[in-house]
Amino acid sequence: MSREVKVTFEPSGRGVFVLPGTILLEAAARVGFIIETPCGGAGQCGKCVVRVTSGACLPCEACYHTLSDDDVARGYRLACQCRVDGALVVEIPETSLFQTAQKILSRDSGEPTTVEPTIVKRFLELSPPDRDDGRSDVSRVRDALGNVEIDPAAMPAMPDALRAGGFRVTATLSGNRLIRLDPGDTRAVCFGVAFDIGTTTLVGTLVDLNTGADRAVSSRVNPQTSFGDDVISRIKRCRDDAHGLAALHDAVLKATNAIVDDLAKQASIAPDAIVEAVISGNTTMQQIFCRISPVALGEIPFVPAFEDALTVRAADVGLKIYPYADVQVFPQIGGFVGGDTVAGILATRLQQSEAPALLVDVGTNGEIVLANRGALTATSVAAGPAFEGARIVNGMRAARGAIEKVVFNDDVEINVIGNAKPTGLCGTGLIDAAAGLLDAGILDITGRILGPDEMPATVSRALRRRAIEENGQCRFVLVDATESGTSEALCLYQRDIRELQLATGAIRAGIAVLLKEAGLRPEDLGAVLLAGAFGNFIRRNHARRIGMLPPIPTERIRFVGNTASSGAKRMLLSRTERAEAERLCRATRHVDLSLNPDFQMEFSQAMLFPEADAHA
Amino acid sequence: MSREVKVTFEPSGRGVFVLPGTILLEAAARVGFIIETPCGGAGQCGKCVVRVTSGACLPCEACYHTLSDDDVARGYRLACQCRVDGALVVEIPETSLFQTAQKILSRDSGEPTTVEPTIVKRFLELSPPDRDDGRSDVSRVRDALGNVEIDPAAMPAMPDALRAGGFRVTATLSGNRLIRLDPGDTRAVCFGVAFDIGTTTLVGTLVDLNTGADRAVSSRVNPQTSFGDDVISRIKRCRDDAHGLAALHDAVLKATNAIVDDLAKQASIAPDAIVEAVISGNTTMQQIFCRISPVALGEIPFVPAFEDALTVRAADVGLKIYPYADVQVFPQIGGFVGGDTVAGILATRLQQSEAPALLVDVGTNGEIVLANRGALTATSVAAGPAFEGARIVNGMRAARGAIEKVVFNDDVEINVIGNAKPTGLCGTGLIDAAAGLLDAGILDITGRILGPDEMPATVSRALRRRAIEENGQCRFVLVDATESGTSEALCLYQRDIRELQLATGAIRAGIAVLLKEAGLRPEDLGAVLLAGAFGNFIRRNHARRIGMLPPIPTERIRFVGNTASSGAKRMLLSRTERAEAERLCRATRHVDLSLNPDFQMEFSQAMLFPEADAHA
Repeated sequence: MSREVKVTFEPSGRGVFVLPGTILLEAAARVGFIIETPCGGAGQCGKCVVRVTSGACLPCEACYHTLSDDDVARGYRLACQCRVDGALVVEIPETSLFQTAQKILSRDSGEPTTVEPTIVKRFLELSPPDRDDGRSDVSRVRDALGNVEIDPAAMPAMPDALRAGGFRVTATLSGNRLIRLDPGDTRAVCFGVAFDIGTTTLVGTLVDLNTGADRAVSSRVNPQTSFGDDVISRIKRCRDDAHGLAALHDAVLKATNAIVDDLAKQASIAPDAIVEAVISGNTTMQQIFCRISPVALGEIPFVPAFEDALTVRAADVGLKIYPYADVQVFPQIGGFVGGDTVAGILATRLQQSEAPALLVDVGTNGEIVLANRGALTATSVAAGPAFEGARIVNGMRAARGAIEKVVFNDDVEINVIGNAKPTGLCGTGLIDAAAGLLDAGILDITGRILGPDEMPATVSRALRRRAIEENGQCRFVLVDATESGTSEALCLYQRDIRELQLATGAIRAGIAVLLKEAGLRPEDLGAVLLAGAFGNFIRRNHARRIGMLPPIPTERIRFVGNTASSGAKRMLLSRTERAEAERLCRATRHVDLSLNPDFQMEFSQAMLFPEADAHA
Repeated sequence: MSREVKVTFEPSGRGVFVLPGTILLEAAARVGFIIETPCGGAGQCGKCVVRVTSGACLPCEACYHTLSDDDVARGYRLACQCRVDGALVVEIPETSLFQTAQKILSRDSGEPTTVEPTIVKRFLELSPPDRDDGRSDVSRVRDALGNVEIDPAAMPAMPDALRAGGFRVTATLSGNRLIRLDPGDTRAVCFGVAFDIGTTTLVGTLVDLNTGADRAVSSRVNPQTSFGDDVISRIKRCRDDAHGLAALHDAVLKATNAIVDDLAKQASIAPDAIVEAVISGNTTMQQIFCRISPVALGEIPFVPAFEDALTVRAADVGLKIYPYADVQVFPQIGGFVGGDTVAGILATRLQQSEAPALLVDVGTNGEIVLANRGALTATSVAAGPAFEGARIVNGMRAARGAIEKVVFNDDVEINVIGNAKPTGLCGTGLIDAAAGLLDAGILDITGRILGPDEMPATVSRALRRRAIEENGQCRFVLVDATESGTSEALCLYQRDIRELQLATGAIRAGIAVLLKEAGLRPEDLGAVLLAGAFGNFIRRNHARRIGMLPPIPTERIRFVGNTASSGAKRMLLSRTERAEAERLCRATRHVDLSLNPDFQMEFSQAMLFPEADAHA
């Protein structure tokens, strides 16, 4: 087993353990840094340049073409091609970071990241009331602000705020509506939070609304998982248990409020200083967050409660930021295609793509959006929880002890998260293993694990002896009992492969139907954008090898990070983006695959693995 | 002591005990029936006709002039002049009731009482979603209603309501905003509640928004009285105690919610079926109700928090009707002149009066509005709690056991509320006693109770011996210890008279200043409208005798009932009235008497009782 090495990224100090040979770009993505690759990783543009400040990292050939000798000598490297050789400290220049997802498809638009949030703070120096000026507090404030609406919820605190501040106060306006009045000048303190409410993971980003800068990030497992791994089981819970919706709502709000507390602590502010929130999630997650029953999403024809963006009050949903802050909920496209997908389109500017492009968010629910000549079509497929490690015999989440990477050479090498003994297999490891087994000829295209005697002659002895036959089926041993953290061998079972086939087949079939309806072939795709926390860590060639992604060159497959979060942040920072989200949502045609006769056919075909990787 | 007799009014069945000799009109007013008296009680118009169906009631002379002999024989009587002789059952024809307060001043406008509430219910029969129609629930409902706004608070219940009702649902709209969706057809059940939030008393009226009819009335003592009798003591509590406002708010909401429960019980509905509320009260009461600090009302220049009408959500203020119902709070004129005064102007159409007219609401705080050629001027005076029985040695509220009426003949006769032994003296009894003592010559115009030896010769022996001198001051015995419910004599003390002088003097001075500013004399007044629960029970001539009301003929002094309630009901029933309330509020000039140099002078003069009643 190869020994993983640590790569530390500056200036953040975030570190990650990777196998030697890992490309720097990938190591960075593992800790959430998406590096610019306008040339598609061809080593031509030099945009992905980073600097190795400690440790050994051989320059790739492209480094000498693209960078000056001097720069190479000073440690500059192209992250897209240079590989980790040993422990490294790598500095990522601000200019190499994928700043705004919009650039990925319209990279020459040069659009600046505008900070024009709905929330505006204004400092007022008012004259106190006297005998000649007995205007009410509300009139006094309104006269100073121009003709704004005063939120009645902001009134109770007004008389005291005015007097505590000696009539020098800061007004917090949400658009044209006063939502808060504080004594003194508090303009410098103005925060919003963008939430990605995932089926499995909740992520909150605290944003300074004055500058647009991230101030803190925090995440939690969505505690609703204790009610079921996928949205369907949670919808059923709401249907069958009169208190189900309340229980699910309470669970997610409790965790979300823990995130708020953590964010506030990290930034040394009071949670109350957060005066706006944006939520993006799939339809079920968004509706439960808003305490709206998702039961109709569990019945044909899978009707969401709302489509247009929703504004609810923080206190009304139980979110413990400023109680009268607006919580902006993303618009929903239809069925299971919800706000996270709209956020993804918003973040990537998918619709501006000149060539046809796909946005794929792989999770328990997979959402797929096709942009073709400005037209957007979206669908969702139930990939199931295999990628989260569920329903896989030795499966687990991508946590400490998980085999996150499997490399096939003469034998199997693995990488384990967190410098621990392996205790299970997470989604990326599962894909790696299946791709490796296919390439080695140990797995046939029907998904059957061959017995040692059936394997091609090219299979090494080391690999061959890992296949163990029992009751006419084979399992493949990834880790011997002696090396396992569980003291039992960690294996890939025949039934695990079937689960994987269902998951990848669903995504592949979804993509196939969208392409077919648009009259496109996979090779017409200029880009496939992989979104989501999981998508970030997938080995693109392996995902393509098992058929989850279409047969297009690796460089056209791009990681776009957590677009549910980055899209939510965009909405938080800009009124224009909010309007754009509504527009994009309305412009996107929803394809309900449950009603689509082609889908079942494509799905059954997609259960076969591809013969080979066309772009290996 | 005369024995009170019972008068029962049909068709309501409400009864009241009164002294023989009481005019029918007054007996009716005691139980809340305001009878029409367009001719001012002169016995000329016949509008106040009622029918005595049981018991003896001699026809007055005017009956023979105004009614046919046949009608008189059948028991018809003019309520304005006929007196109660013994126990009676009296039928009040619908046409004799003071239907809508607006008529009092513009009686020929013939304006109908329109029922056009902000709340409208619409029954929808929607097609359920199917494969060809996957619109969201919100879109489905909105498409059926036309372009309405959907209150996000109404969304959580929508999916279940649609499905429980088989997509036959009732939409509750507040103006253009959907606030609620219920399964089935619930149009018949549509209620609002009008609240009079008084410093001392809370009154709620449940109104059927389909018909405009009252369905129930309920009242409670405002439990804030335990924090102080008047608004100033409650404002101080909010200023000095960090939890004061919360405690006062909780107290009034608890009682208001008890009223809601009682109203719902009386009408056999769920509190949740009440989908709108209107609040009218003085500035302090309205602000505390809305949890808005009233502290600035306690400091010069007495600034209210708001002037324009306010709409808050029931759940936000803790009112337990439908949680997302609007609570409409009356606009406020300024200082202590609040929503109850606007409601009074709205209810009486004061501004339409051709002759100058006053609206006087006598309570712990006295509000006075002058209408003069369409211009409205308003002020308030601190009358103190004497009329509520507070600060009066043997004072009490107008409850069971209270002496509510005192008649001076050779001796003193009293009427006690609730057929009980007397235990104290309430406001009306206090005014009666003072007026009677003035007329008898036992009280001089400076307010001194004369000793038996100083009294004029005309004073009877029975009255004379009731004055008891002690330490150079006299008290006047109203009830001997043997007849008292407390086993101690009930007396009017010299200091009680001083309290009464302060209370009446404040009102008289307030009226004087408004008249002076307008260049009017008291006799120019075409009408003085007495509003409020207390005003209803005052003997007009006695109030005029002690100088509380200006020296104008009794028939120009009219009872207009609880206009805080009737005005609130108007607003509840009509969008037009709501706009009119805003308009009237803005059109009314507020006079702050604390800043008025004339007021102190008028006040000191008004401490002297009038020499005699000019219109006795």
